[in-house]
Amino acid sequence: MIKPIIGITIGDPSGAGPEICIKALKNDYVLNNCRPVLFGDRNVLRKAASIVKCETKINIINNISEYAEGVINLISLDNMACNYEFAKVQPECGKAAFEFIKRAIESALAGDIDAVVTGPINKEAMNSAGIHYSGHTEIFADLTNTKEYAMLLSGGPLKVIHVTTHVSMRKACDMIKKDRVYSVIKLAHNAMTGLGIQKPRIAVAGLNPHSGENGLFGDEEINEIIPAVEKARVEGMDVTGPVPPDTVFLHCKNGKYHVAVAMYHDQGHIPLKLLDFMGGVNITVGLPIIRTSVDHGTVFGKAGKGTADESSMIKAIEMAVQFALNKK
Amino acid sequence: MIKPIIGITIGDPSGAGPEICIKALKNDYVLNNCRPVLFGDRNVLRKAASIVKCETKINIINNISEYAEGVINLISLDNMACNYEFAKVQPECGKAAFEFIKRAIESALAGDIDAVVTGPINKEAMNSAGIHYSGHTEIFADLTNTKEYAMLLSGGPLKVIHVTTHVSMRKACDMIKKDRVYSVIKLAHNAMTGLGIQKPRIAVAGLNPHSGENGLFGDEEINEIIPAVEKARVEGMDVTGPVPPDTVFLHCKNGKYHVAVAMYHDQGHIPLKLLDFMGGVNITVGLPIIRTSVDHGTVFGKAGKGTADESSMIKAIEMAVQFALNKK
Repeated sequence: MIKPIIGITIGDPSGAGPEICIKALKNDYVLNNCRPVLFGDRNVLRKAASIVKCETKINIINNISEYAEGVINLISLDNMACNYEFAKVQPECGKAAFEFIKRAIESALAGDIDAVVTGPINKEAMNSAGIHYSGHTEIFADLTNTKEYAMLLSGGPLKVIHVTTHVSMRKACDMIKKDRVYSVIKLAHNAMTGLGIQKPRIAVAGLNPHSGENGLFGDEEINEIIPAVEKARVEGMDVTGPVPPDTVFLHCKNGKYHVAVAMYHDQGHIPLKLLDFMGGVNITVGLPIIRTSVDHGTVFGKAGKGTADESSMIKAIEMAVQFALNKK
Repeated sequence: MIKPIIGITIGDPSGAGPEICIKALKNDYVLNNCRPVLFGDRNVLRKAASIVKCETKINIINNISEYAEGVINLISLDNMACNYEFAKVQPECGKAAFEFIKRAIESALAGDIDAVVTGPINKEAMNSAGIHYSGHTEIFADLTNTKEYAMLLSGGPLKVIHVTTHVSMRKACDMIKKDRVYSVIKLAHNAMTGLGIQKPRIAVAGLNPHSGENGLFGDEEINEIIPAVEKARVEGMDVTGPVPPDTVFLHCKNGKYHVAVAMYHDQGHIPLKLLDFMGGVNITVGLPIIRTSVDHGTVFGKAGKGTADESSMIKAIEMAVQFALNKK
């Protein structure tokens, strides 16, 4: 088996991302199952290595063919000076973090790497540098020219894909339309087969309490969700729903379904964060490339201290490897 | 210590409620800490006792002064014939279940019993008998003439009180107003002190993802929730919020807060059912009497089989006892 090449962006230099990346590279699963290549800056990475007391040699490479074993391989964009501060929103950090991502996406699109795993960025820092995206997901969609995509979160025993994410509850209600729901069911199906599950069992949550109780508390189930579920079923997908939102995640936890389709951000995030706060993975599905990510922010509170938890980064690398192996 | 008298309504005769009640009465905590009195019908209870193979004598009483130890005390409304079926919506069952509740409420209002614990009813059966309530909570509010009340759920490590419950998500958004939010914070405070917590720590969840991110995804936090939190703080309550909905329950689970104020049904029900599906307790707060309940339906699938789980009923009795002892 050829080990997949996993590109890892180190995230905002002022956060704990670079430290987390270096710590994750020492993990046994990572060491044995992939060839990791960091996308970042040599000054930032050296500082992070010193903080986490890592003495492994940093191998600066210009292209993937220079990859070597036993060292930390880094594609350095050389876009950061040493004088940035930890735990502070700085435009130069936002800009650098964006450039790491852009370069990693280009490498993935060119087929040089098999997947991109992203470290945490700071949206405010990026915005202050004039780069206006609401997050990684939108950067990946834009730079790969993808129109139909969704956020899949994996944590502990749960996998949840979202029909809507960073919008108000009122706007989320407006956005639950049968075409979008159907499209997310299909993205969920493809993501699960991409992880090697041959006949994925998909549960679609309702929007309203008790899934609306036959129209008594809202009609989105009747007008939008049920037609989408039926369309997916006709196409042969194993889909159940709408399942009452307050029981669907328990069923998923118990193995009845492989993945839940959530209608709004917190419907999916509440159960995930409750069961698995630090080891969550965020996956953008629908892209032409594989992209997984840590499911937490820059952890400013631990930046520069070497104490931030790398479990989410390790899990994100594991999932990227699984997707990459199933794609080959 | 005088053991409180706990009135327990046996619920819809065609469901598993009567069996659950009899099973719960054999629990050590229940035996040692309260004087339970069932409100039901002798035919129904005898049938249930036979199903769960309970040979304890059933002591039919007309008023609480006839309570005896070592037997099952029953206030029998004698409103059911023996010919009802299990697991079927029947108007006579809905009507009888309502009458059990009405009588228990009258006893509580008269001070004859210290609390009411309710077994599961079937809304459809009650409606088919011409009794139009959307559930227990509304019956209790109406029959005790209570205007300001809320549903508090307790399960495992979590206690969650709800600003809105059985309404569509769109309607819930409309109903989140500062007066109601403030009032529910106060009800939460009073419920926690009623359980013996002297300085309860209350977390108020936001409505929108990330609590709206300063108005970026919705303005209910700014216009309604923050003013309510501030008003409660001025009055000396220990209130934090709005806390992002996807982390507040983890904080509660870890003991940072005693109770969370949820904005809508599933915001509170998703974490509760995920952590503690069968042992949940439903408490109506704001009533002049104490009322707790099982947090599940009639369990039609197990009705008449003696196999339904009584843990939620036991927990509901435990909480009623705690409230009663703190009130004395």
